[in-house]
Amino acid sequence: MIASFRRTLSALAAFSLATGPLVAQTAPPSGYASVDPFIGTGGEGHSFPGAVAPFGMVQLSPDTDTRCEIRACYPHAAGYRYEDPTIQGFSMTHFSGAGHSDLGDFLVMPVRGDVVPLEPGDPATPRSGYRSRYAKQSETASPGYYAVQLDDAQTRAEMTAGTRIGVQRYRFTPGAPAHLVLDLRSALYTYPGKTLWSSVRIRPDGTITGMRETRGWAPARKLYFAMRPSAPLTGHGFFNAEEKVPYKGFQGPSRGRDDAAQLAGRALVARLDFGLLDRPLEVKVALSSVDEDGAIANLDSEPGDFDAIRARTRAAWEAALGVLQIDAPAPMRTSVYTALYHSLMAPSVFSDTDGRYRGPDDQVHRAEGFTFHSTFSLWDTFRAEHPLLLLVQPERRNADFIRSLLASQQASPFGILPVWQFHGRETWTMIGYHAVPVIADAYLKGVRGFDADAALAAMVQSASYGPYGGLDWYMRLGYVPIDKEPEAASKTVEYAYDDWTIARMARALGKADVAATFEKRAGNWRNSFDAKTGFLRARLSDGSFREPFDPTAINYGSDYTEGNAWQYSWFVPHDQAAMFRLLGGDAAAVRKLDAMFDFDNSKLDYSHAEDIAGLIGQYIHGNEPSHHVAYLYGFAGQPWRTQERLTQIVGSQYKPTPDGLSGNDDLGQMSAWLVFTALGFYPVAPGSNQYVIGRPFVDRAVLTLPNGKRFTVVASGLSDANRYVGKVTLNGRPLPRGYLRHEELVAGGELRFTMQPRPNRSWATARAARPYSASAAGVR
Amino acid sequence: MIASFRRTLSALAAFSLATGPLVAQTAPPSGYASVDPFIGTGGEGHSFPGAVAPFGMVQLSPDTDTRCEIRACYPHAAGYRYEDPTIQGFSMTHFSGAGHSDLGDFLVMPVRGDVVPLEPGDPATPRSGYRSRYAKQSETASPGYYAVQLDDAQTRAEMTAGTRIGVQRYRFTPGAPAHLVLDLRSALYTYPGKTLWSSVRIRPDGTITGMRETRGWAPARKLYFAMRPSAPLTGHGFFNAEEKVPYKGFQGPSRGRDDAAQLAGRALVARLDFGLLDRPLEVKVALSSVDEDGAIANLDSEPGDFDAIRARTRAAWEAALGVLQIDAPAPMRTSVYTALYHSLMAPSVFSDTDGRYRGPDDQVHRAEGFTFHSTFSLWDTFRAEHPLLLLVQPERRNADFIRSLLASQQASPFGILPVWQFHGRETWTMIGYHAVPVIADAYLKGVRGFDADAALAAMVQSASYGPYGGLDWYMRLGYVPIDKEPEAASKTVEYAYDDWTIARMARALGKADVAATFEKRAGNWRNSFDAKTGFLRARLSDGSFREPFDPTAINYGSDYTEGNAWQYSWFVPHDQAAMFRLLGGDAAAVRKLDAMFDFDNSKLDYSHAEDIAGLIGQYIHGNEPSHHVAYLYGFAGQPWRTQERLTQIVGSQYKPTPDGLSGNDDLGQMSAWLVFTALGFYPVAPGSNQYVIGRPFVDRAVLTLPNGKRFTVVASGLSDANRYVGKVTLNGRPLPRGYLRHEELVAGGELRFTMQPRPNRSWATARAARPYSASAAGVR
Repeated sequence: MIASFRRTLSALAAFSLATGPLVAQTAPPSGYASVDPFIGTGGEGHSFPGAVAPFGMVQLSPDTDTRCEIRACYPHAAGYRYEDPTIQGFSMTHFSGAGHSDLGDFLVMPVRGDVVPLEPGDPATPRSGYRSRYAKQSETASPGYYAVQLDDAQTRAEMTAGTRIGVQRYRFTPGAPAHLVLDLRSALYTYPGKTLWSSVRIRPDGTITGMRETRGWAPARKLYFAMRPSAPLTGHGFFNAEEKVPYKGFQGPSRGRDDAAQLAGRALVARLDFGLLDRPLEVKVALSSVDEDGAIANLDSEPGDFDAIRARTRAAWEAALGVLQIDAPAPMRTSVYTALYHSLMAPSVFSDTDGRYRGPDDQVHRAEGFTFHSTFSLWDTFRAEHPLLLLVQPERRNADFIRSLLASQQASPFGILPVWQFHGRETWTMIGYHAVPVIADAYLKGVRGFDADAALAAMVQSASYGPYGGLDWYMRLGYVPIDKEPEAASKTVEYAYDDWTIARMARALGKADVAATFEKRAGNWRNSFDAKTGFLRARLSDGSFREPFDPTAINYGSDYTEGNAWQYSWFVPHDQAAMFRLLGGDAAAVRKLDAMFDFDNSKLDYSHAEDIAGLIGQYIHGNEPSHHVAYLYGFAGQPWRTQERLTQIVGSQYKPTPDGLSGNDDLGQMSAWLVFTALGFYPVAPGSNQYVIGRPFVDRAVLTLPNGKRFTVVASGLSDANRYVGKVTLNGRPLPRGYLRHEELVAGGELRFTMQPRPNRSWATARAARPYSASAAGVR
Repeated sequence: MIASFRRTLSALAAFSLATGPLVAQTAPPSGYASVDPFIGTGGEGHSFPGAVAPFGMVQLSPDTDTRCEIRACYPHAAGYRYEDPTIQGFSMTHFSGAGHSDLGDFLVMPVRGDVVPLEPGDPATPRSGYRSRYAKQSETASPGYYAVQLDDAQTRAEMTAGTRIGVQRYRFTPGAPAHLVLDLRSALYTYPGKTLWSSVRIRPDGTITGMRETRGWAPARKLYFAMRPSAPLTGHGFFNAEEKVPYKGFQGPSRGRDDAAQLAGRALVARLDFGLLDRPLEVKVALSSVDEDGAIANLDSEPGDFDAIRARTRAAWEAALGVLQIDAPAPMRTSVYTALYHSLMAPSVFSDTDGRYRGPDDQVHRAEGFTFHSTFSLWDTFRAEHPLLLLVQPERRNADFIRSLLASQQASPFGILPVWQFHGRETWTMIGYHAVPVIADAYLKGVRGFDADAALAAMVQSASYGPYGGLDWYMRLGYVPIDKEPEAASKTVEYAYDDWTIARMARALGKADVAATFEKRAGNWRNSFDAKTGFLRARLSDGSFREPFDPTAINYGSDYTEGNAWQYSWFVPHDQAAMFRLLGGDAAAVRKLDAMFDFDNSKLDYSHAEDIAGLIGQYIHGNEPSHHVAYLYGFAGQPWRTQERLTQIVGSQYKPTPDGLSGNDDLGQMSAWLVFTALGFYPVAPGSNQYVIGRPFVDRAVLTLPNGKRFTVVASGLSDANRYVGKVTLNGRPLPRGYLRHEELVAGGELRFTMQPRPNRSWATARAARPYSASAAGVR
């Protein structure tokens, strides 16, 4: 979700698949070696290039600009933009591809020399602050590692990260005193009043600890740190840049001096002096949401120096990326492995080593028997990111996600599952209760290790909490009325899908009454569908559709969420066949899909709306509502049309370059789409246990599943010319269906596509060969 | 410390002692019945009339005004002023007699009717808000209980308190809906930006919990609450009065409605609805510094309804006040018992029932084997309050104070003992390191139950922390130089005294090296004493005294702390004899004491200075530096002059009326002075184990000591006329000394004064009969 339309992006160069497998003269590089962390750090991706361990709590990455007053903050949501000429510092926390700004906690910057600026300075005026210019060619990054030569600071900076720690290494050019600036004001983004409170202290053993409580995207988010430099301090200064503080009480030992052992306030910056160093300075920093002792314990739990941590994290990445072995030309290899890399960052570890974490109620809880994860971008990730993680991460990790969601529901002041949570805090971003399909999909695909009955109860409770998002009206009327609640059309259809997943899980648990209730609710999408115009539309509480109606309009607080009727009318993933019948049948559905993809946008201007990027007509690949839509042709019996659209989308929306993502990566969803699509199938309706077959983009892929079995995809004859699926076999037998069952996938085996230059207009066209639809399945 | 000079107060009516014991026809009321909690709630006392248990964490008391923009906030430091015509609400936390404003947490006000105002309104405009008029005659208070009839609210309000809980009882006039307003904005005092963060939620079981983090006198103080009403809510509203919030993120279920289960922000107010009630509404509230679960556990730890809690706390007060049995006319009984009551509030319990508390580093700690107490107004209370508590409270309580101080030092980012701490937070108010004499005095008087070696180490560390209060200069030069550090003269002499107590404790522990170091430092008062003018003066770092010099000048940031040369020149309690020699001998010292008491202030104006109240010439009883000074005549061999001055002070500075304290009670110090003085002796130099004998103001007193023994004071023949001590016997034998030894006191026995109308000019005049002086004792 959330990415600005940039017209220039519609000119993205298409992938060239022409070189094919012939160029692979030597053994291809490993998955690890194929990742390019710079992909998505320009353009619309909002990725960061810094160091992170798989699902790590720390994302240690350069910030090129954190201030919102200089330029739009939206493009700097991850702190870094590839094209920026200066680096302001290195901070410990970043979202991978979010459309909203926050984090950027605990920015550190090396400064060399006798004068230590305490302000970042203006990027346009060299040496006006502690920020430094750098040469692009000096930058290098690989999973868990980032390095750059800072020209003004005359320092080589390297970053690596463990699970709860980040390690910085600075090689100062000899001959002048070395310092670090720790700017507790800096945030993504920085604005007056964001820091509610902060503190920093030097402990007798030299450990520097502190905290910051910020009001940003998340309210009153508290984060603590513990920092240990490899060299002793030769001096320090703690400064408070607050100008006017009413009745702040008396000052302590810091009165009139800046070398006190502790300082607290709302605009702190610290100078740490190291004198003349004869070896690189390493700075190890750990985080905790609990307290400073928690941060210290986390620091102690991951011993070793920079190189040791870097090697450990590299091994973790090699293992995590190693579950997928693909043969493909280098550009596609890079894109897919980087996509997999981007899929393995969130939800991220959030509890301390002792299990404690700060939850949605701002209280400290302890995760007993699991690791609490946070950063759930659920409106995005229920679609393909979580389904992908079920295939590439251990059951334990997936169960931990669900236990984290359930623990959050238990601690929620509202008694409901997370909506968009990070660092344990609810942000109420986007719509729906999409923790529900994440849990249902995992349960139906066999994930255990959590209390399924309690999970179902939490799901039902989340779907029944009246004050949330017009749910009381939805439960009364069968749809969300637009005169009572904004974005009502989008909410109605997303609730209906979520309800269907509750019903599916209830059936699996033998709870017939719950299942019946939610099977009925699953049909509520019909209440907002206008058969006359053929669009999903917002209804008023009196039952009429809201007028005037413009299916191309995109506005905040409108009938739709980050989109319009063109994109949202397709959101019936659980009952696409019924929706097509309402449209007038398969031919009409295909005509409408084509009308969307082929729409002439020349008279439209969406520059006012964020997150509208990656347009193909009225299809918007840069935002999630469109993500399943190219796969819908198959539901109308024309899978070759899906194959055409996927060719068009992959070729125009992904590139192995910094501006290579056409929309926000959204904590892995954009990337997970590519991983699935490259393999030739996609989870259109999580909860159905079906993957709709598209077309593969790699010559061969071997997926080592969490159960240890291997599932191989072969795309025989794949080339730019052979872009259509001619034949499909599963384990040597023809697969006449347009979908793969989850049970077939996890049993291991080989899915073989025979590619050809022309469409196969007979494969998987029969009604019985089409993917899941609730109505076809006998529900309603 | 800290109280404004009000000229009207110099007209305080003197005590009439004329009625004598003859009026006591029936058994006198108990100590409990003699307490008048309204004493000190007008005038300069800054006391509160509300409900508190001995040393309780909760002080549940009415606030008549909390806003600083309407009138000066200083007079409302305890929230309540006796003369105010309206009550704004009842809040859970108050200082008893502080000169600085903070607390006032979690204000609740009953509202009756269909319209519920959410603003307090203007006292001058009835019914302009939720505040209510009340009739003075409807008010009643006794230890642990307060009640008032609220006219506008048509509700009888009663308050009681346990250790960590407060209970409110509201009897709404029937016939209209009952509500409570919980105003999370209200504080002592309230100003924009004070609340850093706050939240409130209703839990599924009906418990209301929340928190507030404020930046007031203490920085970033966090306090949590749990509230249980006796009747179920029929509705509620949570509101946020913040006007402009940059980038606050999305809103949750509260969007567009006010009945969500939770709200967080910086300006919250809650409306709680109870409908038509047919019985009184009781509201039980517990506090915690740790988290909401801590508050809930504290709530559960003190079961029972309003009447049960009230009875339990009454019994606790009867026991605490019962250690002192006095015979005296009613006004003096009331004054002394109320003084004892005021002495038994702080330091107050701060850890939760499970031992956890938030310490000076803002981290959560656990008190193992003791109860953590906070609210240490040490600059005030080291003088007489802590010495009194050693005589009237169990050793365990006194040991807990010291363990709390030591735990605070351990958690201090600066590694030093508290200076002025409340709610676990350091405020850096006033000067000195007066935790040191508190610990030394307790140890030398036999209190055990803490690690004495660790305590001495903490004391030495506190006295050696260079960045604090010019200590690095003090250690280098032997005095604090005024060109480097403000209030240097006061600091020099207070450090010297504190140093002497370190030396005393080190000697007792056999640490000769530490003792020698600090015995030397104890003489540093000489370095700031100007023999030529006969005054303590501030020196520059070049050794010269600062000019110009005006011994009557009182200014902030001057050479002295809340005082001038007249008051501060007497602060050598540990070596008064040497100081008198510097002044030119006993006669010169007496002349100077008289010059101070008899000074003509008619040409001076101290209205700009707070805490300058209770003036007798240049003697200022309303502030602490003077408290020992009337006792100094005895050090010059003229104890009858002390007796005269005490008669003058007691008669002019204390009354059993709301305006009956001439200065801030300062967490019991003003009151403890009266308790000691009424008994006939005073701890001029805590650490000396001597009590200097003055003159008694009660006919008879029996003190039950912590060791179970009884010490009786008899003032034979006491009357307004018989104001001089004629004869003193201890256990029947003449006591020729002007002081009592602690060992003699705790052994139990009888101290009998025979009072007479004329001075006895021969008793206790010999040099050997005079109280402790370090130089006389052979030190230095």
